[in-house]
Amino acid sequence: MSRASSSMRQLAESVRATCRALATATTETKDAALAAIAQAIRADAASILAANAEDLAEARAAGRPEAFLDRLALTADRIEAMAASVDAVRALPDPVGEVTERWKRPNGLEIARMRLPLGVILMIYEARPNVTSDAAALALKSGNAVILRGGREALRSNSAIARALRMGLISAGLPGEAVTLVTDVAHASLGELLKLEGLIDLCIPRGGQGLVQFVHEHARIPVVEHAEGVCHVYVHADADLSQAEAIAVNAKTSRPGVCNAAECLLVDRELAADFLPRVGRALTARGVELRACPISLPILERAGVPAIPASTDDFGREFLSLTMAVRVVPDLDGAIDHIARFGSEHTEAIVTRDRKAQSRFVREVAASAVVVNASTRFNDGGELGLGAEIGISTSRMHAFGPMGLRELTSQKYVVHGTGQVR
Amino acid sequence: MSRASSSMRQLAESVRATCRALATATTETKDAALAAIAQAIRADAASILAANAEDLAEARAAGRPEAFLDRLALTADRIEAMAASVDAVRALPDPVGEVTERWKRPNGLEIARMRLPLGVILMIYEARPNVTSDAAALALKSGNAVILRGGREALRSNSAIARALRMGLISAGLPGEAVTLVTDVAHASLGELLKLEGLIDLCIPRGGQGLVQFVHEHARIPVVEHAEGVCHVYVHADADLSQAEAIAVNAKTSRPGVCNAAECLLVDRELAADFLPRVGRALTARGVELRACPISLPILERAGVPAIPASTDDFGREFLSLTMAVRVVPDLDGAIDHIARFGSEHTEAIVTRDRKAQSRFVREVAASAVVVNASTRFNDGGELGLGAEIGISTSRMHAFGPMGLRELTSQKYVVHGTGQVR
Repeated sequence: MSRASSSMRQLAESVRATCRALATATTETKDAALAAIAQAIRADAASILAANAEDLAEARAAGRPEAFLDRLALTADRIEAMAASVDAVRALPDPVGEVTERWKRPNGLEIARMRLPLGVILMIYEARPNVTSDAAALALKSGNAVILRGGREALRSNSAIARALRMGLISAGLPGEAVTLVTDVAHASLGELLKLEGLIDLCIPRGGQGLVQFVHEHARIPVVEHAEGVCHVYVHADADLSQAEAIAVNAKTSRPGVCNAAECLLVDRELAADFLPRVGRALTARGVELRACPISLPILERAGVPAIPASTDDFGREFLSLTMAVRVVPDLDGAIDHIARFGSEHTEAIVTRDRKAQSRFVREVAASAVVVNASTRFNDGGELGLGAEIGISTSRMHAFGPMGLRELTSQKYVVHGTGQVR
Repeated sequence: MSRASSSMRQLAESVRATCRALATATTETKDAALAAIAQAIRADAASILAANAEDLAEARAAGRPEAFLDRLALTADRIEAMAASVDAVRALPDPVGEVTERWKRPNGLEIARMRLPLGVILMIYEARPNVTSDAAALALKSGNAVILRGGREALRSNSAIARALRMGLISAGLPGEAVTLVTDVAHASLGELLKLEGLIDLCIPRGGQGLVQFVHEHARIPVVEHAEGVCHVYVHADADLSQAEAIAVNAKTSRPGVCNAAECLLVDRELAADFLPRVGRALTARGVELRACPISLPILERAGVPAIPASTDDFGREFLSLTMAVRVVPDLDGAIDHIARFGSEHTEAIVTRDRKAQSRFVREVAASAVVVNASTRFNDGGELGLGAEIGISTSRMHAFGPMGLRELTSQKYVVHGTGQVR
């Protein structure tokens, strides 16, 4: 354990030593490294696939479920997609050095704010090997060094990918240690990494609740919070009902297992009798189980829509499946109250043509994304136009919502004077 | 201890319960509360002074040093200054609801980013009673609830000020608990507060290294880091020497005990022989003790300027006094290297007329403020034009440098659609 500790510290120190080189690398150098990385991933496809085949065989022998094996599995297409993602990150604007604001002081000082990298990022993830190249590309483009700590089941695959990453860095004249894969995947080593204050600036965990919980409990370094997504679609009295139906169906059924899927439908009392039967039919036709509040249940039943009574636990619950809670609320205030009480500040949507209701909902609902007349599923880095996403933050510190390149930077004040003193 | 624990939790819960009211309060309501607070502070001046006199008598009897008593002491003028600060915060623009960016997606979705409050802020401070009203005003204007935990020696003064704060809130129709002073000033209670994840969103410690260290060790909630300020003034080969002299003298001597004072002077080899004697004379004339590197020492000595040899410890040291390390560096790269190794990422200044050197220094030096041709002393919320400052962050997470109203907010994504689904 003390041996793991000292080797993790050594590893982090060797990554930290590359920070200045990364932070001051020009856009051209970083882009050359990204181009070389994409090329190396394509060139190494055969050895990456061979390593992945070994990982897969072991995971299959260990009786891992199909869904797990699917996340772990690479194919020629998936490797090409990894390389294409690196190319896509290369095409994004370099955030480092970007001046976000300028102003002048009465004494003539010119003040600006300029983006700089965070430093060293620790990325912790599970089975998907593509996170290895995705995270490395985002870190590199934003001038950060990165420690990659993937799941033990993907170690051979990740190591093969990491070789391509390293080759790309070196060929562009950047230090290979700027992207370092942790090959000691013991829990104790992860625990040590999480305590390396001063060497690691930010930890981004991507994975199930078990991983997130472990990281949260052991970390002494800043961690991006990623809590569950309990998202609502609220259909206001002045909604376009066909739009509301399409949004509710999409938010619930397009991918029920993800965090921006809706878990609960809130319907304004005024249109409950009109809207509940049609949306209920549309949802149940796609296999959704409805858990209805005491007001909505009889309306659904009278219309012949199958539904069961919601327990109080069903509100505020992340089903991650084709299950949806349904509740009738008296009005906009009732919806906002319900969301404040049961939501998880992830994604909240309103469907309405009423401008005042839109604006109150946008102002008063606290969530990383507040959506008007569209599906909750758009709360995603790619869909919002960030280009790529390294994670999503459900706390308000540093970043709130999907994190792209800019969220991997901080800002410094730049002061230009002509000899001013105080 | 378990009793303290439960009462701190109760206290934090009662503050948290006010979050929505604060977050959704209009600018008019918040400004009315701030106006009422300023008025109440003025109206209560006599009782605040009486409470402060008791605190002072006790502190004096306990043998507290003069500097401590001076920080603790209130006068009619200082109380007026407190009220005026509240008025000044009222006059600042409301950050909540501010839209910082907008863009449109190919599918027609309109994306914006809008500021929202952080939630509940825990402010921990020591002797100065004015922090009570300053922090409350900044929190209130930015829509945050705040828990104020001042030093035990200022408890009577703080309680008297807190009564004025509460009256102001209530008179504007806001919940009085939104600004709550902790009257249980036991260390154990502070420890409990620092563990209230989910109830407190951010802790801002303002005080000496003992306090900062205690908070850092015990906190399970996010904390604004405030490390020491080891700031440099680098005089480049192309500097205007009289400007450089004035900046070095101001950065060192205008207030040597603060974190944005300079601790080390770096002088380009090219102008060491010309510049060191004059700047050395100017500094020593103001009582500065120079600790000089092996190259600068003989130059100073030959010019009759008193100096002692610097030990290696003297570089990277925060003297907080009229002591300054002096080092000759070969060139811009040498200066940047020295700063990267010995600086604390607080404030770094260069004096030069050379645009290229300015731009490289600005890009390559990592510090919360990088200053060109002006004193390091300008790294301060008021001087930078933030209007007011609740603290200064020396880490890059969330905020880097002085924190004003905006740094007490986060940003949410706001998505406007016309029925888009995925």
